[in-house]
Amino acid sequence: MIASTPKPPYYAVIFTSIRTEGDNGYSETAERMLELAKQQLGFLGVESARNDIGITVSYWKDLAAIKAWKENAEHQIAIEKGKAEWYKDYKVRIAKVERDYEL
Amino acid sequence: MIASTPKPPYYAVIFTSIRTEGDNGYSETAERMLELAKQQLGFLGVESARNDIGITVSYWKDLAAIKAWKENAEHQIAIEKGKAEWYKDYKVRIAKVERDYEL
Repeated sequence: MIASTPKPPYYAVIFTSIRTEGDNGYSETAERMLELAKQQLGFLGVESARNDIGITVSYWKDLAAIKAWKENAEHQIAIEKGKAEWYKDYKVRIAKVERDYEL
Repeated sequence: MIASTPKPPYYAVIFTSIRTEGDNGYSETAERMLELAKQQLGFLGVESARNDIGITVSYWKDLAAIKAWKENAEHQIAIEKGKAEWYKDYKVRIAKVERDYEL
């Protein structure tokens, strides 16, 4: 689904990743993290696709909301498992959405 | 591939889309647009993934580079074909990348 986001400005976290082989508990945690992210204050929406690489873009009200989510204890554990087991490589970009338009 | 982008700030164009059924000349044009985008002044990189939805994030030096690419004549034709034939829905977000970090 294309996320229904409010009128800009708001923030995007662009998470691009390359997975390791096998699931290793990834799917379950990914689902839980999505559920948990949706409960955060300031969460606006998320879009995700994967084939050779995975791209997940989550949208947030402001930088404070992104910081709070990054520091969430359960998320922190997932980040560490991600670094150790699930991702061969990843990059996170924090970006301020200034404009948007639709079909 | 995860795009190798310079130190922020720079810009991201987050293009999220849902395709119509069938190819209808889409693949050939998409490949050509990628080739053409890479030749633009200020183009920094691109990341793309698709399953239920497609997400293509292209990275640019500044807003002027994004504007010039949007106004490129061949790209304009592709945009119109995209609206008419290839996409059921899409959303474009222009965002300023303020920070990034890697694995």
